[in-house]
Amino acid sequence: MNDINAVLLLSCPDQKGLVAKISDFIFSYNGNIIHADQHTSRRGKMFFLRIEWELEGFALTREEIPVAFAPLAKQFNMKWELHFTDYVPRVAIFVSRHLHCLHDLLLRKSLGDFAAEIPLVISNHREERPVVENFGIQYCYFPITRDNKMKQEEREIALLKEMKIDILVLARYMQILSGKFIAHFPNRIINIHHSFLPAFAGGNPYQQAYDRGVKIIGATGHYVTENLDDGPIIAQDVIKISHRDAIADIQMKGKDLERMVLARALNLHLEHRVLVYGLKTIVFD
Amino acid sequence: MNDINAVLLLSCPDQKGLVAKISDFIFSYNGNIIHADQHTSRRGKMFFLRIEWELEGFALTREEIPVAFAPLAKQFNMKWELHFTDYVPRVAIFVSRHLHCLHDLLLRKSLGDFAAEIPLVISNHREERPVVENFGIQYCYFPITRDNKMKQEEREIALLKEMKIDILVLARYMQILSGKFIAHFPNRIINIHHSFLPAFAGGNPYQQAYDRGVKIIGATGHYVTENLDDGPIIAQDVIKISHRDAIADIQMKGKDLERMVLARALNLHLEHRVLVYGLKTIVFD
Amino acid sequence: MNDINAVLLLSCPDQKGLVAKISDFIFSYNGNIIHADQHTSRRGKMFFLRIEWELEGFALTREEIPVAFAPLAKQFNMKWELHFTDYVPRVAIFVSRHLHCLHDLLLRKSLGDFAAEIPLVISNHREERPVVENFGIQYCYFPITRDNKMKQEEREIALLKEMKIDILVLARYMQILSGKFIAHFPNRIINIHHSFLPAFAGGNPYQQAYDRGVKIIGATGHYVTENLDDGPIIAQDVIKISHRDAIADIQMKGKDLERMVLARALNLHLEHRVLVYGLKTIVFD
Amino acid sequence: MNDINAVLLLSCPDQKGLVAKISDFIFSYNGNIIHADQHTSRRGKMFFLRIEWELEGFALTREEIPVAFAPLAKQFNMKWELHFTDYVPRVAIFVSRHLHCLHDLLLRKSLGDFAAEIPLVISNHREERPVVENFGIQYCYFPITRDNKMKQEEREIALLKEMKIDILVLARYMQILSGKFIAHFPNRIINIHHSFLPAFAGGNPYQQAYDRGVKIIGATGHYVTENLDDGPIIAQDVIKISHRDAIADIQMKGKDLERMVLARALNLHLEHRVLVYGLKTIVFD
Repeated sequence: MNDINAVLLLSCPDQKGLVAKISDFIFSYNGNIIHADQHTSRRGKMFFLRIEWELEGFALTREEIPVAFAPLAKQFNMKWELHFTDYVPRVAIFVSRHLHCLHDLLLRKSLGDFAAEIPLVISNHREERPVVENFGIQYCYFPITRDNKMKQEEREIALLKEMKIDILVLARYMQILSGKFIAHFPNRIINIHHSFLPAFAGGNPYQQAYDRGVKIIGATGHYVTENLDDGPIIAQDVIKISHRDAIADIQMKGKDLERMVLARALNLHLEHRVLVYGLKTIVFD
Repeated sequence: MNDINAVLLLSCPDQKGLVAKISDFIFSYNGNIIHADQHTSRRGKMFFLRIEWELEGFALTREEIPVAFAPLAKQFNMKWELHFTDYVPRVAIFVSRHLHCLHDLLLRKSLGDFAAEIPLVISNHREERPVVENFGIQYCYFPITRDNKMKQEEREIALLKEMKIDILVLARYMQILSGKFIAHFPNRIINIHHSFLPAFAGGNPYQQAYDRGVKIIGATGHYVTENLDDGPIIAQDVIKISHRDAIADIQMKGKDLERMVLARALNLHLEHRVLVYGLKTIVFD
Repeated sequence: MNDINAVLLLSCPDQKGLVAKISDFIFSYNGNIIHADQHTSRRGKMFFLRIEWELEGFALTREEIPVAFAPLAKQFNMKWELHFTDYVPRVAIFVSRHLHCLHDLLLRKSLGDFAAEIPLVISNHREERPVVENFGIQYCYFPITRDNKMKQEEREIALLKEMKIDILVLARYMQILSGKFIAHFPNRIINIHHSFLPAFAGGNPYQQAYDRGVKIIGATGHYVTENLDDGPIIAQDVIKISHRDAIADIQMKGKDLERMVLARALNLHLEHRVLVYGLKTIVFD
Repeated sequence: MNDINAVLLLSCPDQKGLVAKISDFIFSYNGNIIHADQHTSRRGKMFFLRIEWELEGFALTREEIPVAFAPLAKQFNMKWELHFTDYVPRVAIFVSRHLHCLHDLLLRKSLGDFAAEIPLVISNHREERPVVENFGIQYCYFPITRDNKMKQEEREIALLKEMKIDILVLARYMQILSGKFIAHFPNRIINIHHSFLPAFAGGNPYQQAYDRGVKIIGATGHYVTENLDDGPIIAQDVIKISHRDAIADIQMKGKDLERMVLARALNLHLEHRVLVYGLKTIVFD
């Protein structure tokens, strides 16, 4: 059986003794640190930490940890999250017409590659219902028009809350979410954009790449913010192309990239390895 | 000893029988084709060809080839260039303060990696004169101000023509060349831009990349056109970065990329492997 | 609708006029060449060609092409294959316990990424039957022991022939095929080996990679020959690892590689882009 | 001006409280930790740490640090090294006929990319003397034959010790060093091997790669041990090749790889980022 660990993810203004204070805290309750990764931003004078320790033998219960840690956190003005590795996050996937990312995530889930549940798929198209339901997953069809958008988003939010969804994945979802919607899930909506951002933001990036004649295409997994395609980047990757690649070839190569980059971004988030700081991320990989 | 080959590089509207006609032409004069690479653009209905054959045993002299080929070229409305592999092109390198690309090209040249002469380095700074002259290369200092720019460019053009320079390489040259200057050397000025174009065009791309928080940086070798950083791309490459990389680290990693990508772009050009078509390139690598 | 093309894949001793002769042949029957890619091995003095032209408007029927081409082929001592792009090859997938490659191929097939039928999955394990049959694919269980191996292989061969299987894909199939079996499908069995061959041939390559402390792992798609892991390589790719990656992490990263490399190798074969020459391949990509 | 930091690099059997104890030690003397990177090997139950803090404001002098740290080190059975970032290590480069790596290191040194002195080049060939001396570097010619090898190695060791050389770099040095020689510089001799080890160990790896028909070639920077090409790997990288690449093309592509990988391996060592553990390395990058 896997051990259960606690993961503490925090940021605060840099100051002497932070590592010592925090590791002392864990050690004083008899915790065994498994991983610790720390970053100090020289410019911003900020301190970032991801620290993971075994719950077995730890002198505090899960409920007691935040209480005991709070004074330290307050003293150093920390922003922090505490996670336990046996909690299985609940993911909702949003899709439209392009389904390779959806299928890839379902496949990885069924092969045990993700420590997550996927109880819900939301789409603005009807077609995929049978396949998704075959996997035992609820499929909700929310057609979006200019007129019904606000109303539909409200219904979606209600459903997501009711189903206790932790993370939203936009797997080539072609609707733009409103700022109001996004505000309900800060740094918890992950999008795959099929270009190497900030190159080719906006629509039809493969066509843009083809027209510009680039020799490499990319994909970007990022958190969704109000400014389209401008959220903090979690993961990126690229693949070479040449003049021999027509648009269809570029799309085909890009599909593989999108699948891999989205899965990587989601996994980094699920393992609590990502800290958002301003428009950027610290990724403790 | 190396064999001497002829290289024909051409483009024309696509039409049946082009490969047959051209390979017949070569075969009819007893030519032995060493390489042939062809591309048909389905959209533009254009045909592109690079074909290389041995001069030894070929029934035409170098002077006779263009004469004999002209009727075929005219019939199919071809744009074409003919090169011979024993001609050693003459390269002028333009630099400013950042010298890693200059040094790298000189090093490659001295190790025999380039089939080119480098008789001239032009700089808008004085400092590098001794090093360059140590290599037996003429160093010309052309300080550029808003007032003297047109005048200085005219002097540069005169010098480049006088020295029979074939190719200009902007190895981190920080001055913008005028359209008039560029028009003297169409598709013969190669620039290295230290980003993955079209991302981070313009000034200080490493700072831009740092500020955006991308996970990959790049470099682009391209032909210089009037629109800054918008010329046809010859070669691109990327390298991964992380939050651990400060600006100085990004610059260091980028230097290696710039050196490699510029050398590759120049080599592709020197081997007559690049055909420019609109804003894009066909690279027969 | 897609156009139907003919693809000619050939190799022969190098000689003057080959390109001219072959392109003349196609042009003389009014064929429009879409792609032509040629390679001359300077050492082996061999000539390799992949040439693709439109059937529409071609003066010969499919049956007449080989008859008309035969004299030329004989004259130049060519080994050659002729394919038509509307023929859909039939693929059988062999699996054992690791199923990510199988699932990936089925997913790609269902998304329309492969121009192939997959009517048959063969396994030496029982477990996967329901999933495979769900896809409407026949699942055949052939348990292999030392004693029954020859017999089982004979049954497999009979089934494969009966089902008119063109290509066999070993998607992490853990049994070693006999030379006799392989001889029935020369250069038509594609294996994925989960290392960067020739490094870590044989069993448990991820463990080998971990123990050696390499900083990069790889995957290799290759044709199966009698010498295990020594067949002609079609495609390879790699991914970086570090000391932070335990065996389980390496396996996870490797899975993505295996899926991509196997799919790429199979696609190259399906598009008739691979010519085997001795222990090596010419890949016209 | 750059700040001066202390770098502690250590390994020991894993145990609770190690991070706390060590960061307490630094904090108790008023040290400001800049970087800390830690790794725990779950299998070997070993703990590895690289921790870097500012000397400015630290309550101990350089000489006092090891004295104060010794009890802790003893208690936990640590192997440890202490470095200061203002010490400039002294590097000797060994070469034979292939000079691209030597030139590259000299170029990087002259551009300020290395925090190291290069006072000495040792070669078993005479030719490069003028170039090296031009850089103001001592050039020592040690021809090696079977008969004089032991004697020459003794002279080399004496010279290296006399010149207080810290690190030896074999930049395509074609002689095999004896075990006795290597024992004088444990984990301080870095070699570049022009293949993706363990593939193509031994002589002429590019020819081996060509003959095997691989689609990717590599380079490996590693510490030299008695078993040839079997030392702990520091850095590796790869580049794609195809059937179009003749041996000369492979060598050309490989040169760039070798230069980059060797420079990266050396830099990682110079920045005290490499811990050797058995036949493997922990690289805190």
